[in-house]
Amino acid sequence: MRDFSRDHRALSLNTATVRKQGDLVAIIEAAARHGITAIAPWRDQVAAVGLDRAVRAARDAGLAFSGYCRGGMFPADAAHAEAARDDNRRAVDEAKAFGAPCLVLVVGGLPQFSRPGSAASKDIGAARRQVEDGIGELLDHARDVGMPLAIEPLHPMYAADRACVNTLAQALDICDALDPGRSGMLGVAADVYHIWWDPNLYPDIKRAGRERLLAFHVCDWLVPTRDLLTDRGMMGDGVIDIRSIRAAVEAEGFDGFSEVEIFSELDWWQRPMDEVLKTCIERHKTVV
Amino acid sequence: MRDFSRDHRALSLNTATVRKQGDLVAIIEAAARHGITAIAPWRDQVAAVGLDRAVRAARDAGLAFSGYCRGGMFPADAAHAEAARDDNRRAVDEAKAFGAPCLVLVVGGLPQFSRPGSAASKDIGAARRQVEDGIGELLDHARDVGMPLAIEPLHPMYAADRACVNTLAQALDICDALDPGRSGMLGVAADVYHIWWDPNLYPDIKRAGRERLLAFHVCDWLVPTRDLLTDRGMMGDGVIDIRSIRAAVEAEGFDGFSEVEIFSELDWWQRPMDEVLKTCIERHKTVV
Repeated sequence: MRDFSRDHRALSLNTATVRKQGDLVAIIEAAARHGITAIAPWRDQVAAVGLDRAVRAARDAGLAFSGYCRGGMFPADAAHAEAARDDNRRAVDEAKAFGAPCLVLVVGGLPQFSRPGSAASKDIGAARRQVEDGIGELLDHARDVGMPLAIEPLHPMYAADRACVNTLAQALDICDALDPGRSGMLGVAADVYHIWWDPNLYPDIKRAGRERLLAFHVCDWLVPTRDLLTDRGMMGDGVIDIRSIRAAVEAEGFDGFSEVEIFSELDWWQRPMDEVLKTCIERHKTVV
Repeated sequence: MRDFSRDHRALSLNTATVRKQGDLVAIIEAAARHGITAIAPWRDQVAAVGLDRAVRAARDAGLAFSGYCRGGMFPADAAHAEAARDDNRRAVDEAKAFGAPCLVLVVGGLPQFSRPGSAASKDIGAARRQVEDGIGELLDHARDVGMPLAIEPLHPMYAADRACVNTLAQALDICDALDPGRSGMLGVAADVYHIWWDPNLYPDIKRAGRERLLAFHVCDWLVPTRDLLTDRGMMGDGVIDIRSIRAAVEAEGFDGFSEVEIFSELDWWQRPMDEVLKTCIERHKTVV
């Protein structure tokens, strides 16, 4: 297992962690100022400053990438299917423009939440079939471009509105169906926040193996959690045994970044950017 | 599948659904007034009016029971282990005093939340082992008394603080380990709120079978959900395909009550008791 206590070379900043404190260019400058060597940008933050300017800013700062957030939201009714397809192809192309190592997929829940305006459904099984079909179709384009797709299972509390893929096992079943050869073009993003509770976590990390482990995200689960989406904790402030999960991921050969991704309306989004980044770095050394 | 559209004989009222509107005696009187034939009382509501008085009130009203809420909270440090054990034996005895068909077990999460004052831990695997040991020990007493134990898997968002058994599969693994003969003394409480998202839901209902399906609870998952604990929806107001789940449970031979259990600080706990019960009955006929 790598020793993170001496430096923060392995830390990547998911730019949503400080999304309220500045635009993407300001975040890139702050990351560079703190010696952070990699980021994972969000599409809406990229769009706000323009793709070309974002790519140039990251290149000028010498930043690497741990992923690009995000594609997905596959379930849709017929009237919204083409928009979903085009949107995902653009996400692949943007990830390529940055030279990101993977496009993270948040697959979507029921169609009325995944692609608003779609006819309402309670059939989560049908949504799951649409997800697998959508990833299969996108994978053709991703292969052409050379952009690996990382399916991110989200916590089951997001099953209705954000992602109906809720366990590593489910994500790996999709990987095995669509990419049986383990080509490296399809895998998972393992975020401790979403998977820490899973009774099958350690066997499924093993099942994923090096070829399927495309990204590793960290934050913490707070008790109490005051909001389903935006009350994620700084590493060390919650109950997740982060180091044991990292050990398992690294035991499979994963040697990529630990990407810090914290949505925190009530706490970290209210603090100065430099304080947040300093704390991320300190906790990366002591807790991750 | 049973036809619920004509009457509400199969409806049971979990008394937490109207816990803010009156004490247990008032709830029993209201249930009787609305022709509700069964309830599932909570221990704190029973304690508030006294066990003898609660038993007498239920008997006078001619009520049956769908379960007794609740035993569990097994994880504890050594200093709190005996209190946990005694508390659970008392819960079994109280359930027996009512003549309830099962004691529902909410098994507890990490020890510091399960039995406050216990030393803090992040080891959810150890908590899960304590749960299995605790149920095994309680089962001896439950067998002596003749009170079946129903393990209720809770949604993974409660894994840290309320229950580290989060899927039917996990609960059934415990059942198979402790009661391989399927004696009827150990099974599960299947609550649609906690299990609707599970990709393995239908196979696991089949695996449970008639002997393990001791209780069936209904409410709905709202989008958005504004609070992790107390924003559960009235049946029909959310995204759960309740009828398909009931069909699967009944296909295994389950012919017990549909227990309505809604924790709703912002909505149903604010409304008059009679309005809540009228709505439960109407939705039981049209949605459950």
